[in-house]
Amino acid sequence: MAYELYYWPEIQGRGEFVRLALEEAQADYVDVARGRGGERKMMKLMEARGPEHPPFAPPFLKAAKLLIAQTANILLYVGARHRLAPATEAGWLWAHQLQLTIADLVQEVHDTHHPVASSLYYEDQRDEARRRAEDFRSNRMPKFLGYFERALARNAKEAAHRGAGRLIGTRLTYPDLSLFQVVEGLRYAFPMAMAGLERDIPRVLELHERVQASPPIVAYLKSKRRIPFNEMGIFRRYPELDERN
Amino acid sequence: MAYELYYWPEIQGRGEFVRLALEEAQADYVDVARGRGGERKMMKLMEARGPEHPPFAPPFLKAAKLLIAQTANILLYVGARHRLAPATEAGWLWAHQLQLTIADLVQEVHDTHHPVASSLYYEDQRDEARRRAEDFRSNRMPKFLGYFERALARNAKEAAHRGAGRLIGTRLTYPDLSLFQVVEGLRYAFPMAMAGLERDIPRVLELHERVQASPPIVAYLKSKRRIPFNEMGIFRRYPELDERN
Repeated sequence: MAYELYYWPEIQGRGEFVRLALEEAQADYVDVARGRGGERKMMKLMEARGPEHPPFAPPFLKAAKLLIAQTANILLYVGARHRLAPATEAGWLWAHQLQLTIADLVQEVHDTHHPVASSLYYEDQRDEARRRAEDFRSNRMPKFLGYFERALARNAKEAAHRGAGRLIGTRLTYPDLSLFQVVEGLRYAFPMAMAGLERDIPRVLELHERVQASPPIVAYLKSKRRIPFNEMGIFRRYPELDERN
Repeated sequence: MAYELYYWPEIQGRGEFVRLALEEAQADYVDVARGRGGERKMMKLMEARGPEHPPFAPPFLKAAKLLIAQTANILLYVGARHRLAPATEAGWLWAHQLQLTIADLVQEVHDTHHPVASSLYYEDQRDEARRRAEDFRSNRMPKFLGYFERALARNAKEAAHRGAGRLIGTRLTYPDLSLFQVVEGLRYAFPMAMAGLERDIPRVLELHERVQASPPIVAYLKSKRRIPFNEMGIFRRYPELDERN
């Protein structure tokens, strides 16, 4: 039976991290809210009188009788099912730890344009956004990306270079797919800041290239299933929030 | 062998969610950074040349050979080891989903006093904090607590009222302990807003009472191991950020 993915139909957002894993696994899935009546169906599943385990927010995944919410939790499930995570306890905990760190980064990206309230327009918090984005570009972005760069260096060394461009071991895992998406998103939202940073993160870029060359991902990125970046999602291009450090 | 917990020694912060689980489980653990030389040892473990799986930030837990970071990830591990989570797949995924939703709430609490940058003083972002805190009190706090209230109501009904005051089934789980801490923290940081909300969340308060009455938690809360709330942690009492809705 096909998975049912529920997420906002007009953005990549957090749903994209799940889409990339399902696409890499060549799993059979329906992106429900992008179909007729799908958004209504999604809202219904968030009601208390709906499913046994109602989600607080999209994305969520229906897998037979299971309904799983929270991006990292969905990936924990999908990763184990589709060999996108190590099977050892130390390995899958490490994969999940990396994913939760990526989730923290993604939240901070969101808050660069919505530092006051998700419920307000960007235009109503632009001054605060300028300050927050400056801190993000100068401090947080290099810190997060530097962390992943070091994790990649360490893995390349341990796996005797067969692990180059991968966060864990010698196989692609779900945090690799998510880190690819982070690079895509940061290049879209902060092209100037990223241009200044890229020379310091060669291994992160190597991972990006490697994921981008994976045949299921090549096919996905060319398809209509991949929604283009836009100014409704998490990674938004607002030139006033970007600058070369 | 005792667990080693690594977290900032002067605050409850995110480490408190781990402490509560270890205390309820009556697990043998050392709160390393609160001992002599412990903070230096903690910083060392975050260096790239340190452990195989370096943490991005505290808290992290050393369990024999494992080093596990990210609060929710640590609880996933501790919950399974100490019967603080359901054993079924549907059950542990639901527990983790609830925990990740609590983590989102905790991040939003942090951002009420640091909406611009963690690296800046509160005093340098007080105006932004006022706006963010207002949105948090008016929109986010009722939304999150209402969600947990409904989850509790649902569980009470399904477990034929033997589950009253618990999020999952009829036994205490790690999200129960974390939701207890959220109530503690919100009462400390936003006493006026909480006073206005409490009549709408009787089941959340019932859970709080139930956790507070658990003998290992009673003992812990009276001990010196429980650090008092203060204005360096996540839940801070800044009267200008609080108001009855």
